[in-house]
Amino acid sequence: MQSLLKPLLGMVLVAGVVGAAQAQAPFAKVEDAVKYRKNALFVMAQHFGRLGPVVKGERPYNKDEVAKNAAIAEQMSKLPWDGFVAGSDKGETGAKPEIWTDAAKFKSAAEKMQQEMSKLAQAANGGDLNAIKAQFGETGKACKACHDDFRKKP
Amino acid sequence: MQSLLKPLLGMVLVAGVVGAAQAQAPFAKVEDAVKYRKNALFVMAQHFGRLGPVVKGERPYNKDEVAKNAAIAEQMSKLPWDGFVAGSDKGETGAKPEIWTDAAKFKSAAEKMQQEMSKLAQAANGGDLNAIKAQFGETGKACKACHDDFRKKP
Repeated sequence: MQSLLKPLLGMVLVAGVVGAAQAQAPFAKVEDAVKYRKNALFVMAQHFGRLGPVVKGERPYNKDEVAKNAAIAEQMSKLPWDGFVAGSDKGETGAKPEIWTDAAKFKSAAEKMQQEMSKLAQAANGGDLNAIKAQFGETGKACKACHDDFRKKP
Repeated sequence: MQSLLKPLLGMVLVAGVVGAAQAQAPFAKVEDAVKYRKNALFVMAQHFGRLGPVVKGERPYNKDEVAKNAAIAEQMSKLPWDGFVAGSDKGETGAKPEIWTDAAKFKSAAEKMQQEMSKLAQAANGGDLNAIKAQFGETGKACKACHDDFRKKP
């Protein structure tokens, strides 16, 4: 067994190192990963936020406008996660270390937000303002839950 | 005629003011518009840029990966333009005044880039690496042409 284990262990170690390198892969440097996730989240928040005045009745409801903003917010909600590469908890970021130390919980919170954003895009396509209002609230809760656990207080 | 002209002129002036206000409309403040366009362009550039090593032969060609990045770059290419609101040529921006003083030429350059990015997404879906290489070059030229004319030298 010893003779079998050694090369196997070697393969596991190599796989681990390759895995870590790949985690950074799409970004030239860690700062780009931080900037990427912040930028994607800002663009998402802008489009999600444009539904706020409509939901509050401060702006007339326009089905196409709401559907377009919700669709862009849904697309954007899929992007930021690749940017949370290992070692990117430093510098210009509000990311808490728990993103990496409790990665399963973070993944679950990120997926929850994406699901709620997709439901919002569906509701926006449906054109029922009451359904949009309800789902806007649910999506906002998913944003807040993740911020509460994984983002430092500004 | 004088009695007719005065209210008409008033309507034109009101329309002009409303038009200017609407141009800023989706953004709470001018700084958000600047941040929005820069953020959208950065996310686009990240995904477009990931095709660079593939096109240069430094990274193995993976059809799904290239198609995904090109599709996201295409989606992102549609977003930044709303951020070029009136009065947003100041502050943390490399935007040249020509964006507003030669608006028709800027619009044309922006549309050209979006067209070339769409062609790139189509080529990436097609899966012909030579076609992707050629269209990557054309898209890069459209980026550069707009930067040459409308972005200050860093």
